[in-house]
Amino acid sequence: MSTATRPADAPDAGEFGLIARHFQRLGLANPSQVALGIGDDCALLAPTPGSQLAISSDMLVQGRHFFPDVDPAALGHKALAVNLSDLAAMGARPLGFTLAIALPEANDSWLKPFATGLFALADAHACPLVGGDTTRGPLNICITVFGEVLPGMAMRRGAAQAGDDLYVSGQVGEARMALELRRETPWALEHIDTPSRPALIERMDRPTPRLALGQALSGLAHAALDISDGLVGDLRHILRASGVGAVIDWASLPRTGAIAALPEVHQQTCLLHGGDDYELLFTAPATARDSLLSAAQASQTSIHRIGCITAESGMLRLLDAAGQDRPILGQSFDHFAT
Amino acid sequence: MSTATRPADAPDAGEFGLIARHFQRLGLANPSQVALGIGDDCALLAPTPGSQLAISSDMLVQGRHFFPDVDPAALGHKALAVNLSDLAAMGARPLGFTLAIALPEANDSWLKPFATGLFALADAHACPLVGGDTTRGPLNICITVFGEVLPGMAMRRGAAQAGDDLYVSGQVGEARMALELRRETPWALEHIDTPSRPALIERMDRPTPRLALGQALSGLAHAALDISDGLVGDLRHILRASGVGAVIDWASLPRTGAIAALPEVHQQTCLLHGGDDYELLFTAPATARDSLLSAAQASQTSIHRIGCITAESGMLRLLDAAGQDRPILGQSFDHFAT
Repeated sequence: MSTATRPADAPDAGEFGLIARHFQRLGLANPSQVALGIGDDCALLAPTPGSQLAISSDMLVQGRHFFPDVDPAALGHKALAVNLSDLAAMGARPLGFTLAIALPEANDSWLKPFATGLFALADAHACPLVGGDTTRGPLNICITVFGEVLPGMAMRRGAAQAGDDLYVSGQVGEARMALELRRETPWALEHIDTPSRPALIERMDRPTPRLALGQALSGLAHAALDISDGLVGDLRHILRASGVGAVIDWASLPRTGAIAALPEVHQQTCLLHGGDDYELLFTAPATARDSLLSAAQASQTSIHRIGCITAESGMLRLLDAAGQDRPILGQSFDHFAT
Repeated sequence: MSTATRPADAPDAGEFGLIARHFQRLGLANPSQVALGIGDDCALLAPTPGSQLAISSDMLVQGRHFFPDVDPAALGHKALAVNLSDLAAMGARPLGFTLAIALPEANDSWLKPFATGLFALADAHACPLVGGDTTRGPLNICITVFGEVLPGMAMRRGAAQAGDDLYVSGQVGEARMALELRRETPWALEHIDTPSRPALIERMDRPTPRLALGQALSGLAHAALDISDGLVGDLRHILRASGVGAVIDWASLPRTGAIAALPEVHQQTCLLHGGDDYELLFTAPATARDSLLSAAQASQTSIHRIGCITAESGMLRLLDAAGQDRPILGQSFDHFAT
């Protein structure tokens, strides 16, 4: 790939010295799955024979996916995390990733923490960088991640069944709260107390891909996806792909203290339309309840039963504690809608 | 992956209608290798059990890799071609690719020909689009391509041996001639006659990935790569990776009429430092000469023996017809060097 085009007589000059300094590490995290890493026309991976290859690609653009002043270490983490989260949603095990990056300038003081944040997460999940590309241009980060899964075991969006329970992992809504703080939205400044803020910002800047949970759910859950655009918007993908409906139980949505302290209208914005949560949303038969709790414990990730799947195709209802319908306001994020 | 985040109630709106219209085709080129295509968290590929996975990723930025007024159909072709060329250099067979694209606006009149050019090449090589991402931002195209190769059969840069013949496929230098025409460089305008120009522009805008040749070379050639930054610059990667030297025979470099009509100094620029050729440069033992000619014929791609590999590590010589050394001027392209 293009990373390899360093002139032999200028080993530390320009683009390629920059790559060597920051991205070309000698110690691969998991060499058994990497037959050939950075430096040739292609990387070579050696998946487990007979496994299927799960692939996801995300492109992050400054001003759209992150603020220009974002901590580069957090950005390195997040750029990989959002891709690993897609593997988690399929129940796949990471094999490696490529990084293509356009940079306005070769800036060591930016690249060093970016690489540190990136590799810390990669190492934590034994997911080595195997190749990529660098070029000059407006800041743009494109990561493509590869994982493996046994044939027939990937959790797909179209597999939800009427009668399934509906679950969400961890906590949704906190990244949206952090976003509103960064935007200095009056209600956020008014209702989110100062001690709560660093943890919320951390949730937005350093999402946790639920890889262990995803792999533990494989074989138990029917449908799954990761929440990137908001719980309701992403749930609708499952409903459409599966030809089913759903009921969300408003009272059973998990709420941290910071979210519980918000007026209900803002709770709803954050919980249902938050975005950037990277939690898993999944459906499973009621017979799997005990096994799911064990899977959650084994993967040290909380799960919350928040509703159920119905046979009414495309119908999404939100019910309050009294069983009354609540309106679902707002819409998920769409890069080209506005 | 993020392509899938279309709200269920707005099937043709914004980002996702745009994707559906241009990229989400019903008929996959080769469904046997694609277990799951666009529309879920990940794509699922089913490589041949026991094969290795070859991966390459390239990012193309406007103003750096292509002119702002480039024909979008040619750009769609080229964005995939440069990645397929990396598979060719390893001897890999294409399985599929992802496309991540940042667009300043959702522009149907640009996307339609872009997709047409992209899919024409993808279909020609049975390499389906399996997923990706779209976002708003400065125009940026990142394609990651996947292929498969039998273990131990990939042609690597470090496998050249002293005594090997050195070969190049097809014709190098024409893309550089086209670039100089586009730049209105005086020597190009003076020496390249008008009838020759469309074919040269075509070579720059629509490079031909040498996939059939690459697969035919596997098992015959020792080292190989594709020429993206110029013959000399790319040859140095083989020399460094293999710990060898090389001699290039100036007279044996293939020359079309348009190149032969140039003064020698410009011939050298184009032939040795052209860039954007996407021809294969490879080494093979002399015992393979007949088999290589058969492989070239079978893949309908010309090959040219242009020199040999020597034991003098890092030493690159250019010899004229009389066996005299000629200076090698110029350097390959580096995105961050200037």
